[in-house]
Amino acid sequence: MTDAQQFASDNYAGICPEAWQAMDRANRGSASAYGDDDWTQRASDAFRDLFETECEVFFAFNGTAANSLALASLCQSYHSVICSAQAHVETDECGAPEFFSNGSKLLVAPTESGKLDPQAIRKLATGRADIHFPKPRVVTITQPTETGQVYTVAEVQALSAVCRELGLRLHMDGARFAHACATLGCRPADITWRAGVDVLCFGGTKNGMAVGEAVLFFDPALAQDFDYRCKQAGQLASKMRFLSAPWVGLLESGAWLSNAEHGNACADRLAAAVADLPGVDLMFPVEANAVFLTAPDTVLDGLRARGWRFYTFIGGGARFMFAWDADPARVDALIADLRAVAGDAGADAFACAAA
Amino acid sequence: MTDAQQFASDNYAGICPEAWQAMDRANRGSASAYGDDDWTQRASDAFRDLFETECEVFFAFNGTAANSLALASLCQSYHSVICSAQAHVETDECGAPEFFSNGSKLLVAPTESGKLDPQAIRKLATGRADIHFPKPRVVTITQPTETGQVYTVAEVQALSAVCRELGLRLHMDGARFAHACATLGCRPADITWRAGVDVLCFGGTKNGMAVGEAVLFFDPALAQDFDYRCKQAGQLASKMRFLSAPWVGLLESGAWLSNAEHGNACADRLAAAVADLPGVDLMFPVEANAVFLTAPDTVLDGLRARGWRFYTFIGGGARFMFAWDADPARVDALIADLRAVAGDAGADAFACAAA
Amino acid sequence: MTDAQQFASDNYAGICPEAWQAMDRANRGSASAYGDDDWTQRASDAFRDLFETECEVFFAFNGTAANSLALASLCQSYHSVICSAQAHVETDECGAPEFFSNGSKLLVAPTESGKLDPQAIRKLATGRADIHFPKPRVVTITQPTETGQVYTVAEVQALSAVCRELGLRLHMDGARFAHACATLGCRPADITWRAGVDVLCFGGTKNGMAVGEAVLFFDPALAQDFDYRCKQAGQLASKMRFLSAPWVGLLESGAWLSNAEHGNACADRLAAAVADLPGVDLMFPVEANAVFLTAPDTVLDGLRARGWRFYTFIGGGARFMFAWDADPARVDALIADLRAVAGDAGADAFACAAA
Amino acid sequence: MTDAQQFASDNYAGICPEAWQAMDRANRGSASAYGDDDWTQRASDAFRDLFETECEVFFAFNGTAANSLALASLCQSYHSVICSAQAHVETDECGAPEFFSNGSKLLVAPTESGKLDPQAIRKLATGRADIHFPKPRVVTITQPTETGQVYTVAEVQALSAVCRELGLRLHMDGARFAHACATLGCRPADITWRAGVDVLCFGGTKNGMAVGEAVLFFDPALAQDFDYRCKQAGQLASKMRFLSAPWVGLLESGAWLSNAEHGNACADRLAAAVADLPGVDLMFPVEANAVFLTAPDTVLDGLRARGWRFYTFIGGGARFMFAWDADPARVDALIADLRAVAGDAGADAFACAAA
Repeated sequence: MTDAQQFASDNYAGICPEAWQAMDRANRGSASAYGDDDWTQRASDAFRDLFETECEVFFAFNGTAANSLALASLCQSYHSVICSAQAHVETDECGAPEFFSNGSKLLVAPTESGKLDPQAIRKLATGRADIHFPKPRVVTITQPTETGQVYTVAEVQALSAVCRELGLRLHMDGARFAHACATLGCRPADITWRAGVDVLCFGGTKNGMAVGEAVLFFDPALAQDFDYRCKQAGQLASKMRFLSAPWVGLLESGAWLSNAEHGNACADRLAAAVADLPGVDLMFPVEANAVFLTAPDTVLDGLRARGWRFYTFIGGGARFMFAWDADPARVDALIADLRAVAGDAGADAFACAAA
Repeated sequence: MTDAQQFASDNYAGICPEAWQAMDRANRGSASAYGDDDWTQRASDAFRDLFETECEVFFAFNGTAANSLALASLCQSYHSVICSAQAHVETDECGAPEFFSNGSKLLVAPTESGKLDPQAIRKLATGRADIHFPKPRVVTITQPTETGQVYTVAEVQALSAVCRELGLRLHMDGARFAHACATLGCRPADITWRAGVDVLCFGGTKNGMAVGEAVLFFDPALAQDFDYRCKQAGQLASKMRFLSAPWVGLLESGAWLSNAEHGNACADRLAAAVADLPGVDLMFPVEANAVFLTAPDTVLDGLRARGWRFYTFIGGGARFMFAWDADPARVDALIADLRAVAGDAGADAFACAAA
Repeated sequence: MTDAQQFASDNYAGICPEAWQAMDRANRGSASAYGDDDWTQRASDAFRDLFETECEVFFAFNGTAANSLALASLCQSYHSVICSAQAHVETDECGAPEFFSNGSKLLVAPTESGKLDPQAIRKLATGRADIHFPKPRVVTITQPTETGQVYTVAEVQALSAVCRELGLRLHMDGARFAHACATLGCRPADITWRAGVDVLCFGGTKNGMAVGEAVLFFDPALAQDFDYRCKQAGQLASKMRFLSAPWVGLLESGAWLSNAEHGNACADRLAAAVADLPGVDLMFPVEANAVFLTAPDTVLDGLRARGWRFYTFIGGGARFMFAWDADPARVDALIADLRAVAGDAGADAFACAAA
Repeated sequence: MTDAQQFASDNYAGICPEAWQAMDRANRGSASAYGDDDWTQRASDAFRDLFETECEVFFAFNGTAANSLALASLCQSYHSVICSAQAHVETDECGAPEFFSNGSKLLVAPTESGKLDPQAIRKLATGRADIHFPKPRVVTITQPTETGQVYTVAEVQALSAVCRELGLRLHMDGARFAHACATLGCRPADITWRAGVDVLCFGGTKNGMAVGEAVLFFDPALAQDFDYRCKQAGQLASKMRFLSAPWVGLLESGAWLSNAEHGNACADRLAAAVADLPGVDLMFPVEANAVFLTAPDTVLDGLRARGWRFYTFIGGGARFMFAWDADPARVDALIADLRAVAGDAGADAFACAAA
């Protein structure tokens, strides 16, 4: 993969040094299997320290499983899960939540931005109250959203208030949770359990790990038998230390946050640079490590011609994602190319208009 | 963990050098996600080279998932899977095969040794032919078995013959497949597809990887849409290269086989040493990297007192497992301790008898 | 229940004489269980005669199960089912299709009328082609639709053509299939297998039975092991004759069609009568036994005050459904009341406008 | 079916007069759907009267579904259900419990008689306590057992005591519950909730109905959302009155008990008659409406030659089942034929021995 392709996804990045070194240290000698080892204990404690609470911590292999297992633990097959139309669980998990829960339906709020609001939840949760429709039981929000926006603490509090009122649980898909914390500058506890979140899936892969997500239950009662659930669903690692040690590396060093800050900064750098580019606009506020741009086809084609790669699956806009290892020089190169092709496009348009 | 504890499980070992180095190399720069990368292509090709056939290759996180997904792909919920009473899918997967298949029942043959034979298959497959009982559809064998015995090529051929006759598919749980190959000295193809195996789950974790198993479909038609199945079930790694690169390290270097040979040799060493120990007996022929010993409680307690750890879940015998990194000096230390406590026990018995 | 309430649903009707008499006859003496009886054979043959083909016939207890089992047999958990936004499987089955299939997602086309068209199918079927989204595998249409419209033979042919082109199966939810046949005046074969339908769920309950639906597979290969599927899912009746005999009563007497014709005629009678009523409009063309009316709240309240009951869950319009036993005199009474309250409302409106 | 075949199963009988008449009465006029009707209310109240408690009552189509749904409501997919080796849920439901629960494993106690005892429960419930094996959560007993034996009140109390101690729920499969009550002569409450049963599936089909079972939750908390579960699983009848009215007929008339008494009496009659027949033995104590006989092949063949039909799936013995409509004259005819062929066989044996 060329350097010009790496901003297409923050899944393209490798393992950050802190995670790698922890794996290296963990790879010395033998250790008990299935989580009964020091690294797993230490990683769990690091989460409890970071979140300032005695949460229950589980480790799953990827976000598909972490989120689906968490949702399945909160509902039965005949319940439903309220999410936004942009939610990853709805659009990109191949029906995993339905599979793990044996049929729980996702009720999709037609949001523009991917952010749920209390009204949308209330409407979906109270629209039907008969047994011919799955009973709403959980709300899931993605923090930050798939389009890179961050729920404020007040927003999460407002969501959890309506959840409590309506008897719903609140789940947070934190595939890029660290990026939200970096943006908000708040303690992780403030945007999760103190704001009413019941379960958090904290993403490790996009934070610099090879593989692995953590599932945090802030209400221990909800975690009952979750270890059995993980095992049965193929999410219990035998050599667990290699899933947990990288978390020790990330959490104890602070890399979990600095990695996210770096990605966010790169996104800000790109966003700032395009502010004055004619015809190029931000599709969404840039609040995390993603930038979605709308631009004329000639601009997008021009970027592609110069080797840049990006997805356009949301509204036809170009998505750029900045991982922990995004090279600022490459971001500048992207900016320069974008200016060049947008300038050409502007000149073309001028020429065209003048003709 | 002390050195004296490591023989309790081959899951206690870390990552072997060849796998580690491949991960290290894979961790340079960016790479496409979800398997669309060079390492995954190279690992798949290495499997096809090793097995001398154009098999379809998939990577899953662990054996629970690999075996359960493979079985689920071979049957519907109302079908059944024939296995031995010692089969890991029956005894140690917390109902994972039933979960992934949405209800397929395991039909358990009451074998002593964990090895299925054609008669046992025929009996279970033909015992019922009414719709009130799940229709047999797959046979799964563990190679080597959970008690460390290896099916010969002729034995697998005999099993596949009865499977073909009865319309059953043949699945091989190869959590320690490499150890079987090391014992048999045959080509991997000879003990799998050439002998009639439809699908193989080739274990990486016990072969020296941090995590990961490969699922090989020798009949490409059976692999249809298996990628969707993996994705939905939470078994698709975004940074796939870190699941596939270690396979490149193992397969291209030959470590997959030498790792297994080493484990097997340690087991043989222990087995040979206890042959003449009074009161200590092998529970099963030692054909892979496991040794199951029966011994008086005083002997087992004596070993525990000297720090050794082992499981006794099968028939009350002590299980010792030797991983790729088993230290021969520690094996010798175990032998010495075993001789010492068995000798004491013998002396005690003699004294007791003489008294 | 008063007579004024019965038009709220065609599920409120009882068992028609032909079905009842067949049950009565079937209730003489003993019979083999689980479908191995003469009545079940005779009912199956009656279906094959009616559809002029050697279809495979199964009997399920209700439409929820019949449709869900049929869909589950056509796809795997990671596949998806294309349906209209008004489809009963989407709106009123409490996630049954997802449950029976262990997670198949419904892809909903945002139709106004509840009728799918080839463009909608093509758009949903080709919108995504990556493993992060369930692979489309089946199209289901309701004939007539939940809002009482009938697909013509040409329309079904056009749907099946696009299905064949895209590798999709075509399922027909025929909860009121007889009503569609009555409207079309065509042979059942013409609107099903000859038009490209793979599987039909033919509704018995709304056709005059106490309970029971038939699942017809026109391609026998698709029916493989469907009997096991029914059994496992709790849809195999031990005293099967009481599910099958009523079909004999309906099919051999022609009541299946005359019952439907009667319901349709009552709907037409109401539709014709409101054509000239000011402020009262048909929401959908009346092509089966349902009439959906929009009317001012005063009119709807006026009807309720006179004892009439009706659902308003679709667009706020009043739904009236006419069963096999709808009393024409009561239809006329409804018409008279509707005229009265609409006239009052019109007079009110006039008075209001004049004031 | 000839009269000589009817004793092969109590599923061969039709609908008893009391159930039929209730259906007939229910078939007058219209009624609300989905259980919101007078008959369903009346049937539910009749159960509450009969059981002297405010239990929650649900109606399912058949025993497969009733038992499977009840078990699924008591456990999660990673839990397990303890049952006897003869339990119908294990041997004759095609994996339905596993399907409805999405993978709960049945742990089978190797009983001879089909009756569980506290020791067997304790052994299975405490044998494993690691996450690699499904966690025991429910015990299910069949009352009477599949081989026709009845748990006494004291026995059920002893089972529930061990369940309470071990944190297990107790479910009773009462496919022929009425027959057990007839034998015990106790109040239904005494053998169910007063003895510690949490959930009862009360069989209607074998008690004289066309179709239908009742699920009774004695702890209302356990019934939460069970109506959604039934709906999603295809077990909610739209014209519910036809499932509930027959229960009114059975319960209010006392036929539920007299039907069972009649079947039991016929079984007793046969059992008494064979007591002195040489070579013919009862396999199990006759405590309900089933008689299992062992007899020489010549005897069984002789019966078959005279037209009698019976199953031999349990231990090769001949099973005779007596339904509510068993004709005593036919029982006597069976006895006479049995005497004749057994006498012949005895004579043959004598002749053979004398030769």
